[in-house]
Amino acid sequence: MNHGTALLWKRRALSSLSATRRGLPKEKMSENGVSSRAKVLTIDTMNPTVKKVEYAVRGPIVQRALELERELSQGMKKPFVEVIKANIGDAHAMGQQPITFFRQVLALCSYPELLNDTTFPEDAKSRARRILQSCGGYSMGSYSASQGIESVRQDVARYIERRDDGVPCDPDDIYLTTGASDGIVTVLKLLVCGEGAARTGVMISIPQYPLYSAALAELSAVQINYYLNEETCWSMDISELQRALDEARRHCNPRALCIINPGNPTGQVQSRQCIEDVIRFAAKERLFLMADEVYQDNVYADSCKFHSFKKVLFDMGPEYSNTVELVSFHSTSKCYMGECGFRGGYMEIINMDDEVKAQLTKLVSVRLCPPVPGQALMDLVVNPPQTGEPSYDKFIKERTATLSALAEKATLTEQVLNTVQGISCNPVQGAMYSFPRITIPEKAIKEATDNGQQPDMFYCMKLLEETGICLVPGSGFGQKDGTYHFRMTILPPKDKLTILLNKVKEFHQKFTQQYS
Amino acid sequence: MNHGTALLWKRRALSSLSATRRGLPKEKMSENGVSSRAKVLTIDTMNPTVKKVEYAVRGPIVQRALELERELSQGMKKPFVEVIKANIGDAHAMGQQPITFFRQVLALCSYPELLNDTTFPEDAKSRARRILQSCGGYSMGSYSASQGIESVRQDVARYIERRDDGVPCDPDDIYLTTGASDGIVTVLKLLVCGEGAARTGVMISIPQYPLYSAALAELSAVQINYYLNEETCWSMDISELQRALDEARRHCNPRALCIINPGNPTGQVQSRQCIEDVIRFAAKERLFLMADEVYQDNVYADSCKFHSFKKVLFDMGPEYSNTVELVSFHSTSKCYMGECGFRGGYMEIINMDDEVKAQLTKLVSVRLCPPVPGQALMDLVVNPPQTGEPSYDKFIKERTATLSALAEKATLTEQVLNTVQGISCNPVQGAMYSFPRITIPEKAIKEATDNGQQPDMFYCMKLLEETGICLVPGSGFGQKDGTYHFRMTILPPKDKLTILLNKVKEFHQKFTQQYS
Repeated sequence: MNHGTALLWKRRALSSLSATRRGLPKEKMSENGVSSRAKVLTIDTMNPTVKKVEYAVRGPIVQRALELERELSQGMKKPFVEVIKANIGDAHAMGQQPITFFRQVLALCSYPELLNDTTFPEDAKSRARRILQSCGGYSMGSYSASQGIESVRQDVARYIERRDDGVPCDPDDIYLTTGASDGIVTVLKLLVCGEGAARTGVMISIPQYPLYSAALAELSAVQINYYLNEETCWSMDISELQRALDEARRHCNPRALCIINPGNPTGQVQSRQCIEDVIRFAAKERLFLMADEVYQDNVYADSCKFHSFKKVLFDMGPEYSNTVELVSFHSTSKCYMGECGFRGGYMEIINMDDEVKAQLTKLVSVRLCPPVPGQALMDLVVNPPQTGEPSYDKFIKERTATLSALAEKATLTEQVLNTVQGISCNPVQGAMYSFPRITIPEKAIKEATDNGQQPDMFYCMKLLEETGICLVPGSGFGQKDGTYHFRMTILPPKDKLTILLNKVKEFHQKFTQQYS
Repeated sequence: MNHGTALLWKRRALSSLSATRRGLPKEKMSENGVSSRAKVLTIDTMNPTVKKVEYAVRGPIVQRALELERELSQGMKKPFVEVIKANIGDAHAMGQQPITFFRQVLALCSYPELLNDTTFPEDAKSRARRILQSCGGYSMGSYSASQGIESVRQDVARYIERRDDGVPCDPDDIYLTTGASDGIVTVLKLLVCGEGAARTGVMISIPQYPLYSAALAELSAVQINYYLNEETCWSMDISELQRALDEARRHCNPRALCIINPGNPTGQVQSRQCIEDVIRFAAKERLFLMADEVYQDNVYADSCKFHSFKKVLFDMGPEYSNTVELVSFHSTSKCYMGECGFRGGYMEIINMDDEVKAQLTKLVSVRLCPPVPGQALMDLVVNPPQTGEPSYDKFIKERTATLSALAEKATLTEQVLNTVQGISCNPVQGAMYSFPRITIPEKAIKEATDNGQQPDMFYCMKLLEETGICLVPGSGFGQKDGTYHFRMTILPPKDKLTILLNKVKEFHQKFTQQYS
């Protein structure tokens, strides 16, 4: 094709584009005397369940943050020099360094020529060989089994047994996933059925991680909210579970209970007693348990310890351990690794009906397999360097450094925020977020409401425009009526986090003054 | 926990397991005097749409092949020494070598320390730096934008413009995906709505790639079959499209038309004229077009050439190029790279309504992002070494070797199969499969039907048990009533493919004799 024709095409395309962008009525969009037709797929004729989906963590505020970054890079003047994104648990983007050993093995698996390179440690090479031997044709480019590479599932099972002091784990009950989100959506998909009052209801905490509400909306399941108790450090009360369940039973069929522990966005770590109570509740009320345990290494408060739902379930004896249906989710994205981009994860299914399990295996086969590099990474997480291996000391040093820094930042965040009048923040016992409550003056609430905006969205938008700090409004996670919050990650490096916290403090004071 | 307790747990778990495996009625599954309860989630109470999903490429025959492999490795005697899996387009598993340059860049991105290694070529390093600069914190461990890394989308857009002789492509219309399957399911999800006679119908070819039927079943959309014409090398006839559409309009709302070109499982490559006719048909009948073009480099027949739907659409002038809604899918899994395990892919959306596009962007954000290593690989596929760069010659040599070998194996497959009486095989013009028609004797059909089995499943199962060759029965892809086929990949190395074809030949002759 010559240059002239290319230009003609470009012009045509741009002309059509600009007509759309100008928002002209579709029947008027004609050109060269050619009349155009209305779209097949429009907002009015698309899947209505998709329209109901919301996902605040990457919502309008993040879109605006990206725009601001672009404007800054184009030299536009702003009251700040950089956008600090504390909206999402994206550790490496905030400067956290990957674990050297993990990346060495991934490089070896990607380009096995490097197995001849003497600068790589032997334990990294032996891990890479083991992974490659489990891949068809010794290549990460092959599809794996849909449930995940068998040797990786074996390593996951051994990890769970160690973690849970010997409670047995069958590799056949492990499914590798594309991040934890994929596993959660897949299990919800199995559970959803019925119409009207028989429609499946799923209990989720409020505040929640919005993947849950988004998935339930898409699946047309009923979202049953149970509220965490902010006054007692976001604890889970059985009486509140009971209230929520009893109310829901009037209009749907509650079948599952989701728990995030350590909590996202609320940062609490559940006590062993609480978990036992929840399991007893699920058994009594016949609920399928889904335990989102992706932050299992992220526990900072001295008084807290991570207890897996599975371990507690098995400690409760066969009345529970032989009957309660439980799925636990884990991921490569959080903890000390923070490898979000690789989309690695696993789920362990416990007491699932054999026929349902066969359906699950069939269902995951349609998408062929989870990404193999993510599976390899998951393997390294559950099978890191051992005492005596060449990479052990460095691994421990790196892991400890990351987890200590997070613990320090958890305390710093809580402390600074609690110095601000009108902000109150529970201790960040675990996970990667604080979810402080903010007082928004009546005048600001009115202005927001007049603009059709949630008051905390109004607050966060102003914060972003004035300081370049990107947080997510509490309304994106759910909160008790009349209360306002935001979620911020504790991930920025300490110096940047200090700046961020001080800017939030200053902004809050100014905002309160302005609207009082 | 001491060893004794661990053992106790193991015993409990195994005891519960074996009760289930023995298939005892559930109410009888009690132990230690503890009565058990029925499961919350059973085959009768699970999502009925999931039960309808079928995916033959990883179906029962593949399960049996895996069992046979295990039995062989345990030393069990079989009439064969290895299982040859020609059931799935998994190139590396069949011994195809990855492109060196791609894997070098992936290793560099995984472990950026290697950027100091002088043995890596400079062009690999500069590609790696560019990718890393587009990643948060210079790490593939960061989440990317949900639509995909911006610089990768730019490279994809430039690739499409080169491929389509200058037809412009806007990077904003590119969405990176987790393999093509992910993109296809996502777009179908947007399209599905309505109930009863207003339910969305989607036209798919028969034979089809069973991802389509699986996705439509899961979404409760209506599958509208149009038959490819086996007599004219699996061509697509507009009259058949019209027939299928007219019939479907009586009971659903047909909204989309899916085309796989080059074809899977049928291996045909569509002519420019055919594509033009299909576009005209879609415009006239108001259908949203979905073009699965993942085999765009896999064209072997001299008389054939790959024409993208987009290029043809734009050649047809603004009456079509400004109005017809089209999505085209591509992937890292096929062509000369065969990097299935990385789950990389993209889709280009053309003429999509702006509001719908915003909904699409929102929807993909819930799953955060496609795997970043897969995005990096997609970038390399669309931006490989250029003339004059140090890796260029090697890249061309490797790519040519793979594609030539595939072309040779395509011819070999067709030729050998056509020497068998009772097997007739169209030319494998493109893609990676042959889909020969097989004559099954009446007696065999009866025996299969009496066993509740599809006759071609019966045939393939026998083939597997007697020869160790794993193919997929035609019934898994759909075929005209009374005809039988199997799908086999042309991917095994030439010597193994020759053995495979001769074994199929021998088996077919024996089978025919046995049942005549």
